[in-house]
Amino acid sequence: MTIKVGIVGATGYAGAELVRLINGHPNAEVAAVSSVSFEGKKLSEVYPAYLGINDMVCENADSVVEKSDVIFAALPHGLSQELGAKCIESGKAFIDLGADFRLESEDEYHEWYGGEFLDKDLHKQAVYGLPEFFRDKIKTTKLIANPGCYTTCVPLALAPAVVNGLIEMTGIIADCKSGVTGAGRGLSQGTHYPDLNEGFHPYKVASHRHTPEIEQTLCKLSGKDNVKITFVPHLLPVNRGILATCYARLKDGVTKEQIRAAYEEYYKDEPFVRLLADGQVADIHNIKYSNYCDVSVFVDTRTGTFVAASAIDNMVKGAAGQAIQNMNIIFGLEETTGLLITPPAF
Amino acid sequence: MTIKVGIVGATGYAGAELVRLINGHPNAEVAAVSSVSFEGKKLSEVYPAYLGINDMVCENADSVVEKSDVIFAALPHGLSQELGAKCIESGKAFIDLGADFRLESEDEYHEWYGGEFLDKDLHKQAVYGLPEFFRDKIKTTKLIANPGCYTTCVPLALAPAVVNGLIEMTGIIADCKSGVTGAGRGLSQGTHYPDLNEGFHPYKVASHRHTPEIEQTLCKLSGKDNVKITFVPHLLPVNRGILATCYARLKDGVTKEQIRAAYEEYYKDEPFVRLLADGQVADIHNIKYSNYCDVSVFVDTRTGTFVAASAIDNMVKGAAGQAIQNMNIIFGLEETTGLLITPPAF
Amino acid sequence: MTIKVGIVGATGYAGAELVRLINGHPNAEVAAVSSVSFEGKKLSEVYPAYLGINDMVCENADSVVEKSDVIFAALPHGLSQELGAKCIESGKAFIDLGADFRLESEDEYHEWYGGEFLDKDLHKQAVYGLPEFFRDKIKTTKLIANPGCYTTCVPLALAPAVVNGLIEMTGIIADCKSGVTGAGRGLSQGTHYPDLNEGFHPYKVASHRHTPEIEQTLCKLSGKDNVKITFVPHLLPVNRGILATCYARLKDGVTKEQIRAAYEEYYKDEPFVRLLADGQVADIHNIKYSNYCDVSVFVDTRTGTFVAASAIDNMVKGAAGQAIQNMNIIFGLEETTGLLITPPAF
Amino acid sequence: MTIKVGIVGATGYAGAELVRLINGHPNAEVAAVSSVSFEGKKLSEVYPAYLGINDMVCENADSVVEKSDVIFAALPHGLSQELGAKCIESGKAFIDLGADFRLESEDEYHEWYGGEFLDKDLHKQAVYGLPEFFRDKIKTTKLIANPGCYTTCVPLALAPAVVNGLIEMTGIIADCKSGVTGAGRGLSQGTHYPDLNEGFHPYKVASHRHTPEIEQTLCKLSGKDNVKITFVPHLLPVNRGILATCYARLKDGVTKEQIRAAYEEYYKDEPFVRLLADGQVADIHNIKYSNYCDVSVFVDTRTGTFVAASAIDNMVKGAAGQAIQNMNIIFGLEETTGLLITPPAF
Repeated sequence: MTIKVGIVGATGYAGAELVRLINGHPNAEVAAVSSVSFEGKKLSEVYPAYLGINDMVCENADSVVEKSDVIFAALPHGLSQELGAKCIESGKAFIDLGADFRLESEDEYHEWYGGEFLDKDLHKQAVYGLPEFFRDKIKTTKLIANPGCYTTCVPLALAPAVVNGLIEMTGIIADCKSGVTGAGRGLSQGTHYPDLNEGFHPYKVASHRHTPEIEQTLCKLSGKDNVKITFVPHLLPVNRGILATCYARLKDGVTKEQIRAAYEEYYKDEPFVRLLADGQVADIHNIKYSNYCDVSVFVDTRTGTFVAASAIDNMVKGAAGQAIQNMNIIFGLEETTGLLITPPAF
Repeated sequence: MTIKVGIVGATGYAGAELVRLINGHPNAEVAAVSSVSFEGKKLSEVYPAYLGINDMVCENADSVVEKSDVIFAALPHGLSQELGAKCIESGKAFIDLGADFRLESEDEYHEWYGGEFLDKDLHKQAVYGLPEFFRDKIKTTKLIANPGCYTTCVPLALAPAVVNGLIEMTGIIADCKSGVTGAGRGLSQGTHYPDLNEGFHPYKVASHRHTPEIEQTLCKLSGKDNVKITFVPHLLPVNRGILATCYARLKDGVTKEQIRAAYEEYYKDEPFVRLLADGQVADIHNIKYSNYCDVSVFVDTRTGTFVAASAIDNMVKGAAGQAIQNMNIIFGLEETTGLLITPPAF
Repeated sequence: MTIKVGIVGATGYAGAELVRLINGHPNAEVAAVSSVSFEGKKLSEVYPAYLGINDMVCENADSVVEKSDVIFAALPHGLSQELGAKCIESGKAFIDLGADFRLESEDEYHEWYGGEFLDKDLHKQAVYGLPEFFRDKIKTTKLIANPGCYTTCVPLALAPAVVNGLIEMTGIIADCKSGVTGAGRGLSQGTHYPDLNEGFHPYKVASHRHTPEIEQTLCKLSGKDNVKITFVPHLLPVNRGILATCYARLKDGVTKEQIRAAYEEYYKDEPFVRLLADGQVADIHNIKYSNYCDVSVFVDTRTGTFVAASAIDNMVKGAAGQAIQNMNIIFGLEETTGLLITPPAF
Repeated sequence: MTIKVGIVGATGYAGAELVRLINGHPNAEVAAVSSVSFEGKKLSEVYPAYLGINDMVCENADSVVEKSDVIFAALPHGLSQELGAKCIESGKAFIDLGADFRLESEDEYHEWYGGEFLDKDLHKQAVYGLPEFFRDKIKTTKLIANPGCYTTCVPLALAPAVVNGLIEMTGIIADCKSGVTGAGRGLSQGTHYPDLNEGFHPYKVASHRHTPEIEQTLCKLSGKDNVKITFVPHLLPVNRGILATCYARLKDGVTKEQIRAAYEEYYKDEPFVRLLADGQVADIHNIKYSNYCDVSVFVDTRTGTFVAASAIDNMVKGAAGQAIQNMNIIFGLEETTGLLITPPAF
């Protein structure tokens, strides 16, 4: 089988990373790419790394939809709803890397993004594409809301503790640090090299849009309906990678051994989650350019605090890689197809 | 007045930074430097940046003590007690950049460092040199336990909230990120360029030796006697700077306005603490090479969490700069003498 | 004496660096700053590093001229001629960090910059402000054409060999590598963090505008009138620093010893040029944030090639620091006043 | 076909990179790995990036030879001769990533490395494995001297001009800049993060051991027997990548068009050499983690100088990737097998 892949918004970072990963996928090929800013230009003019590898000319979205079996959309928030409707109508699969279909509550979507659900029925078809938690449901749909980067990394750090009721669901803190590609290809003073290099700072403290998305997942995993967390992202002077350091109060009497047993059991068959041995720490250095998520867990017995640190490549497991993982599931391929990329050792 | 400064352990990073800062001090000069590893070599052979600026030959510690009015010791833990005794005996001031005199409890020192107090009376003379909190006591001694880097940054982030009883003193979390100079000049695989660059990870999770030192300061500030915190440091791929992101539960009913008022009042006359305006975030980019500490505060009303982020240069306010600030106080100079260095804008 | 300094274009990188350096100058103070883009805003809003240190509000250029004894202009090419005329008319000193007054030949200016000399007499008053070569002439003027960064670094690497006729003046190659601040504060895809980080490339190969300026200086030093060089700049993923690696054919029979003797003699009294010992190499690491230029020389006897590598901080000796060095000379101060900043060891 | 690959010295950087690339090779698998320093340890303990991907235990060299069809040796200079003899004797292929078999002249080997040829006949079997130039000869041997990194990058920049006699063969300058992995995994002060970060300097000026190796290749390409070049390497603060900027005098009358035509013709069928369009510049950013070599050429008509800039990943085309390219040729596979990795766009 060769799946024809269309990428709408191919010149953004997530789009470009999709091109790289699809190039290494044995059962898929890039059929067409589009870009509003670079229509008519070759992709390799925008990304000279792709010279001679992908010299496709950027078309418009309509043309991409027509030529593809599955459409990946890497668009600014708000622009995916219409495109998704069109794809689903034409019987194509649609995998949205933006936020339009991620939140199930229209109120929350309105509160955090300011928009509305244009077609409520369509939203009901959307499945949140975090395979480690929602694999079965993903199989049933053709419309995937691909999670954000932080919103993949934080729940993967916490899930086994949450699912097994080992931690309190109030007072959870997610202190996250992201590489700069998370901010996208668009220029800004904050991502101008001399302003960012040798710098480090938090941003959108307790007000980042990924907050309700993480909470939605933690609600589903815990079975509770009103989990609230404090989420503080920081900008790291590296290209790729997110490290999430998560803190929660341990329930009374929970031991380090129970924590470890829960994590081992929960992740024992997951191909992309690597639970690190006792004493090891997750490091973005070890997962970059790959679809792996490294998870390390700690118990602070002095204070009764659980600490979990997880690391992903924000552009792979946090965006394009996970999107392909979802594609594999939808199309009935082995979930790991094309994604077992060895992370470089340096 | 020209204070004769001796630096024992001058070829370590803290020692080298003292040389840089004393060079810019109008009332002090480097009288002698020592180094065990480089005795007989010029300082500028070890640090070519200092060529023609400080070409002193490294001597031994005894010789440094003899030539100086004040001795700064930047030694591995455990080696300062004897040297300190000798300096105090000879009527010299002694400013220890190591940990030997920082903890008041011998039990805690033993637990975290494995050593003992060789001379309990000497330890009673030692004053913990964090001027923003203990200025008055510093004036009364000649033996300074200069704080560690994290142990400066975290309390400066939290003090006004602690002193005014605005936060709960249990469940405090200090998620800290430090530049690589904090790990010193000694070689290790973890600080080998290709292994660290484009990487980021926590280390010594909830087990770093700065933990009891931070707790000791928070106890003093709060008047409580058993404050425990969860402290997780991370290694940043930058040369300098610490960012401490601290989390605490707000006491019931405490508002953002109360927080801001407390911080404004507490730091209004501090020359080196810059309280940032609402919406601004502390960034290590803005304080590097300087003695400033930038503090930014946030209230997460959704979860009742207080977030404070502070930034210092770990080698200046977190080591050599603060040591000179202490020297200025001891010698009756204006506290800011030689330390009002403008941080470069990039 | 306190010189009142005005900075026109203070929010660009060179302007901001002037502010930092003037803050540390004992005989000068910033009297006023201007910015077209940020008029009415505080400088510390643009550069939060300066918070509480320089909170001046940006005015317009006229107002700056009025309040100052000396005006530093850090403007885009072409905008300094009129401002310079005005300053000189009003009896103020004018130090131009742009290129308008650097080239003596109007033809070359036209060829490389596309402009014209608006007032040929004014241009005759301009002195090229590279004090190591033109100190005496600088004393005679109030209008300084402050050299560019590459154009300071390359001639300092080659001068003693050129002046003493030790190398052939044809076939000289200057392979230069500059930190990113050299590209300025303006945003561009090429200086967007993820596009530049972990990258390295040449640019404007043999076509950079600093070419005729370097040639003009080499002509003056050699007494020849048509020196042509091949100049290739590269962009380094660091904030500051230029390393110039220069290659020339040794004249027949010239030895390593002659080279060294010439360099030692030529630079023996220069306060800012540090000739490195045999075997040492210039490194931008050792001069950053300072006004020093480190020079290292090598003779390749296998091929008869002379190699000189020099390092400066592009924003200090390559811009703001040298401008202040020129100011010191013009105003009769010790040339090093305010500029003997110790470069940090790391 | 599945080739059994043995890696001797697998815990060095080149060895580790071989593991990564063989993991993605459809016709080869890692059969065994060895390490002197880490014998008995898992490879993934040394490189946690490989956790769960390659958890092989490091054995000794003998054991590796026994289990493999081809042995890659990534050893310190001098240790490959004996191992190579043993492999060839047992009928295995031997690909040496060290320098022992690269120089054909024993005198030069002695002069630059201080060693001797233990078995002159064995040396005669060795073929220098730069496939773009010596593909046909590579097919005839089982003993490959895999080129060094600089020694791949510089000749690829110059070959078409050399082969076609378009440049003078005297006075060639190769100004090269390498990422830090080129210095290997061993610790040194110069590769300690804070000492290297924000730094840049030349090293081994005109005395690097790759000099005679580059000259040997240029001799073969030009048909001349005594080509000498000036080679100056620099250390870049990035993990991977070499940029070689090469300078040569154009022969009289040679035009830019002739240069371009020669390069287009010479590289038109090379799968891994990408000749960039007029005006484009080679950038290490665009080839990292891949086996591509980007080449850009320029003519400085003002001075009659030819400038060629080429970029490779020093660990791939400059080491492990090229070694696999050689393996592919020897084993009769398509030369590009397993090596058409898309370089990431960021």
